[in-house]
Amino acid sequence: MEEFLIAVKRASRTAAQLSGRTRTEMLNEMAKALRSKKDIILSANEQDIKNARSNALSSAMIDRLLLNDRRVDEMAEAIGEIAALRDPLGDVIDGWTNPDGLRIEKISVPIGVVCVIYESRPNVTADAAALCLKSGNAAILRGGKEAANSNKAIISALQEVLSLRAMPPEMIAEPPDSSREGIKEIIGQSQYVDLVVPRGGAGLIRFVSENSAVPVVKHDRGLCHLYIHKSADYAKAESIAINAKVQRPSACNAIETLLIDAEVAPHFLPRLKAAFDREKTKLRGCQSCRAIIDVAEATSDDWAMEYLDNILSIKVVSGIDEALDHIAAYGSMHSEAIIAESGGAIERFLSEVDAACVYANASTRFTDGGQFGFGAEVGISTNKLHARGPMGVKELTTYKYRVCGNGQIRD
Amino acid sequence: MEEFLIAVKRASRTAAQLSGRTRTEMLNEMAKALRSKKDIILSANEQDIKNARSNALSSAMIDRLLLNDRRVDEMAEAIGEIAALRDPLGDVIDGWTNPDGLRIEKISVPIGVVCVIYESRPNVTADAAALCLKSGNAAILRGGKEAANSNKAIISALQEVLSLRAMPPEMIAEPPDSSREGIKEIIGQSQYVDLVVPRGGAGLIRFVSENSAVPVVKHDRGLCHLYIHKSADYAKAESIAINAKVQRPSACNAIETLLIDAEVAPHFLPRLKAAFDREKTKLRGCQSCRAIIDVAEATSDDWAMEYLDNILSIKVVSGIDEALDHIAAYGSMHSEAIIAESGGAIERFLSEVDAACVYANASTRFTDGGQFGFGAEVGISTNKLHARGPMGVKELTTYKYRVCGNGQIRD
Repeated sequence: MEEFLIAVKRASRTAAQLSGRTRTEMLNEMAKALRSKKDIILSANEQDIKNARSNALSSAMIDRLLLNDRRVDEMAEAIGEIAALRDPLGDVIDGWTNPDGLRIEKISVPIGVVCVIYESRPNVTADAAALCLKSGNAAILRGGKEAANSNKAIISALQEVLSLRAMPPEMIAEPPDSSREGIKEIIGQSQYVDLVVPRGGAGLIRFVSENSAVPVVKHDRGLCHLYIHKSADYAKAESIAINAKVQRPSACNAIETLLIDAEVAPHFLPRLKAAFDREKTKLRGCQSCRAIIDVAEATSDDWAMEYLDNILSIKVVSGIDEALDHIAAYGSMHSEAIIAESGGAIERFLSEVDAACVYANASTRFTDGGQFGFGAEVGISTNKLHARGPMGVKELTTYKYRVCGNGQIRD
Repeated sequence: MEEFLIAVKRASRTAAQLSGRTRTEMLNEMAKALRSKKDIILSANEQDIKNARSNALSSAMIDRLLLNDRRVDEMAEAIGEIAALRDPLGDVIDGWTNPDGLRIEKISVPIGVVCVIYESRPNVTADAAALCLKSGNAAILRGGKEAANSNKAIISALQEVLSLRAMPPEMIAEPPDSSREGIKEIIGQSQYVDLVVPRGGAGLIRFVSENSAVPVVKHDRGLCHLYIHKSADYAKAESIAINAKVQRPSACNAIETLLIDAEVAPHFLPRLKAAFDREKTKLRGCQSCRAIIDVAEATSDDWAMEYLDNILSIKVVSGIDEALDHIAAYGSMHSEAIIAESGGAIERFLSEVDAACVYANASTRFTDGGQFGFGAEVGISTNKLHARGPMGVKELTTYKYRVCGNGQIRD
């Protein structure tokens, strides 16, 4: 394992020195490689699907795992989009001259070796590899074992481009040992690995957080709220509430709890219930809610629960203060939204809510690297430090200070 | 302890909502408070010095601990400088409109609760408190026990300003239990504490890293190199080498190893030795070095040693490749410098060396918050993530995305 990590670290030094043009060209070649190896990738995926069926995985899981012609094309397109992004390296983020005449420049540079640990969807393999290469990093990609064949086929296709250019294959590497023990060895080695990004269930996140000597930026749970202020426009409130809950309930940026001002609850809740009933959403309400509409009871456990399902808890609040307190107590600092026409309420909400993404009059479902224009994402960070929200190429860089002088010494 | 942490977290929400003007005014009042409480601070310091003497602390330690009229004035001046800095909060770091018409703005915000763990010098207390307040954070300040009385007096003076403005005293807080066990409890609570910055010896850094559930940005060791390229101007090389080693050998930004190209070594080393002899620097050289000048032998242990003393190891290298490899193997990614007139060599060095600060023709001693124009520093980060190099107010912020729409939902 140590030999492997040394090779990856060495590959990261090579990657860091590639010109922006070379990285872009390589990515375009990789997009092509995915298309030309489509048959191999699809037959590897067939094997994974066969195994998933015999292991009785849920149909939702199997759908996440499944590749087809279109999905491979989409993977290739995403790599093309990432290739076309502006080079995130060498940006002069800040710069000044100090009183001694030293020119100080703060420059964006790669992080080094980035290890991404993820589950099921094979497109994450291509996305993460491309984002890491675009930002001059070496990537260690550890996907779920249910997608092992698909991931191997995708990585082989990408590595062919590395090999044609005489680059080390470890620039986009699979760990030699993918077991939990293997992961533990990797994330214990802060001299070789610079960042680990776990994305997946609570168990995985906890395992990585507890065992990592390497900085962790985690893609943890999304307990997101939609708050309907008394000044809200009803039509916006309804369509956004439905979209944020129903469009893809299993996503981390879907809402789990709806907060609504008492003043408009009697008017809004019956119509909202009718709309959610059409979507077969299971509603659970607080006492004040249940005095207005006939729904199941929400217990205090509900406020802390990430359903990841077509279930929504509803709480009637006395006003924005109670809404802000509820979000501070239960939110996971992922995505939070207010529906309001009052500029004052919007400003307070956007300013006081502590979350990666705060929304006014829009669906929380937009928290996504693609939607943000990043081409793809390595994950959505629920950390407060280094990166917050969707992580694209910029979030895979750090910086250093270049200081140029002409003999300056310190007094 | 939990009550204390809850109160600090609450104070951080208050701090985050203060206007830039209020924060600036409070800092100016704090600078005044330090001056007006000078007698109390100095007599508390006298007590610390007395204890230090009876505990037989070294004279260097006692000097670091000592406050006098001028040093208290300097603390107050530093707070004034921090007050005068541009507000680091609310910066629109980036912003764009997505294809759906959503306006996405990336805005700088406070981190929340920042815990700084440090040793001896009491001015760190004032600096860290001021930097945290300027950036809208609550601070937990845990200084060394040798400076306990001084720190308490400084914090009391600062808290008087909070009290006059009816702000919670926990905005600038001392932990109720300063023991290792107390620290462990604090850094185990990621729901209350958002960042911990340890600065001090290897033992402290290791203790915090191993026990923290909170992200750590550490002020770890500085194993810095000065590389003299064959194109170097001798006069610059000599004055910078002397400054970087001798001006304050105990600083983390002082150099420990000098690398010099074989081509100029026979010509430069005898003169460098004469210069270092005048400064009583103890030199240790590799074999090739000792073939030219008469110095003690450097063993392979020397390349990995942070002397923090007036000792310098010297290695003759075949050229820039060997210098870069040596720095990659032994450097601590803090500050690294090249002396060269060749633009090509400078560019390669600045681009390929992976360190927080890379210098051309200047002393590494400039890696410092004050020298960088930050007013002061919470520490010098040797992390690669979140913050690198001197940490001022900007490095005590994170960001969030404010997303404003008009009813947008995701397709």
